[in-house]
Amino acid sequence: MQNFLLNIKLLKTMHREKIRVGFQGEPGAYSEEAILSAFPNADPIGYRSFREVFDAIERNECEYAVIPIENSLEGAVGEVHDLLFEYPLMVRGEIILRVKHNLLALHGVTINMIKNVYSHPQALAQCSVFINRYKLNPIAVYDTAGAAKLLKEKNDKYSAAIASKRAADIYGLNILVEGIENNTNNYTRFLIIGMEDIKKPTGSDKTSIIFGVRHVPGALYKALEPFAKRGINLTRIESRPSKRKPWEYLFYVDFEGHRLDEKVASALQELQQVTSIIKILGSYPISASQHQ
Amino acid sequence: MQNFLLNIKLLKTMHREKIRVGFQGEPGAYSEEAILSAFPNADPIGYRSFREVFDAIERNECEYAVIPIENSLEGAVGEVHDLLFEYPLMVRGEIILRVKHNLLALHGVTINMIKNVYSHPQALAQCSVFINRYKLNPIAVYDTAGAAKLLKEKNDKYSAAIASKRAADIYGLNILVEGIENNTNNYTRFLIIGMEDIKKPTGSDKTSIIFGVRHVPGALYKALEPFAKRGINLTRIESRPSKRKPWEYLFYVDFEGHRLDEKVASALQELQQVTSIIKILGSYPISASQHQ
Repeated sequence: MQNFLLNIKLLKTMHREKIRVGFQGEPGAYSEEAILSAFPNADPIGYRSFREVFDAIERNECEYAVIPIENSLEGAVGEVHDLLFEYPLMVRGEIILRVKHNLLALHGVTINMIKNVYSHPQALAQCSVFINRYKLNPIAVYDTAGAAKLLKEKNDKYSAAIASKRAADIYGLNILVEGIENNTNNYTRFLIIGMEDIKKPTGSDKTSIIFGVRHVPGALYKALEPFAKRGINLTRIESRPSKRKPWEYLFYVDFEGHRLDEKVASALQELQQVTSIIKILGSYPISASQHQ
Repeated sequence: MQNFLLNIKLLKTMHREKIRVGFQGEPGAYSEEAILSAFPNADPIGYRSFREVFDAIERNECEYAVIPIENSLEGAVGEVHDLLFEYPLMVRGEIILRVKHNLLALHGVTINMIKNVYSHPQALAQCSVFINRYKLNPIAVYDTAGAAKLLKEKNDKYSAAIASKRAADIYGLNILVEGIENNTNNYTRFLIIGMEDIKKPTGSDKTSIIFGVRHVPGALYKALEPFAKRGINLTRIESRPSKRKPWEYLFYVDFEGHRLDEKVASALQELQQVTSIIKILGSYPISASQHQ
């Protein structure tokens, strides 16, 4: 009895030690895979929308969140950019995940039995070669993990789902075929966000900022000058509508270096003089698996 | 009898005179509204996917197509950018449409009867204030016009759809409330594409190009220099993954001027020297309703 109580206590302590990390989606989503790759001891908490994830951090319901910012085939996740501008959160890191789509089915089902395949439209498009080869009927649902869940709930022997390995584990499905995507250059870059800033440079850092420029010829050119003339490498530039006025944009820029590095600090100071608005999202270590 | 035959002939001639213009979506889609605003005599032909629209032009099944390129709240339509790079088509014009979302229901239905509202997730998000005020249950479907069609087919008296005015006409629905969007700064910019180029400057033109740069510090800055030093106004810059290599991008740039204008021609010549790839999508008249 004493041992039992002790174990309960231990369990609770272990649970408390787990870091709560928010993501958008159902259990088994690729975002959850990204979380567990960076925080093996995490307690991943799924939310319905990206906005709910950002709210959860602000309310201190989660310590961090992991959100997809861009995919190497599909491009930017627009909504996440807008939320990064809106919320006073900091970017604390990046995670790069190789997206591997798998064909999942109920145990005992063979590929010849399958007629339909459920997944998110983007995943279906990314596996079109495989789907056409096996003459499957693609059916769009809102979530890859949701497709796996649906298959299990319906106990459907004539359908498959395209989802992550983790979704197979969670929903008790069999992985019929692994890695069925057309293009293996399929990576998603996630950002780790939280309330607090990382102040210490590691020597291999990246900085993310947002800025706006006045609508005059050469405005963006002038905004890039402080980086170009110091040899600071821009790794990404993404434009988003300002929403304040049609056809007015904000620029989301990532570049190499920490904002406390002398070179970067002086570039940012100069940038401030040619921009109408500037927001520093944070400096953080470059992912070891960054493919350039 | 002769008159009857004559009329058939006339009808056929009239039909042939109609310009076939492709779009993505169901009849009643906002793209169809855009087509009819620019080609009052058009025969709009709906396709399931953007790729099918591009194929239809190449096969000469349609003379033109009208495709959404960006929305003032949601940003770029990524897939369309990739297809513009892939297909050897020319941009021949732009159309700017104010997107007005309407609440549609069966005739005889009042707002108090409605419990659910069907629409595309983006349209539901853009009308969230209205939806919350009336405590409606949002249900996501793949297409705004498809939502209207579904409502009619189900003969559902307890639901509404958010779609265009044209969708109300086509599916015989009643417009219960007009303009229910949260933000009235809601414009979509469409491009008119076709096989042939517009060679003649009008004096108020815009040019769209795509280019890639080598991954070295200052590469984008150097690519913008030819425009900045000539005072050529960039109206838009959008980055897209190259798909060839992760984290390598192509830049989609719109600027004022026709590519046969001396200033623009020399800027493009200079640009060619600092880019790894360049594709000119076309020069075309600036839309009269361009909001800047």
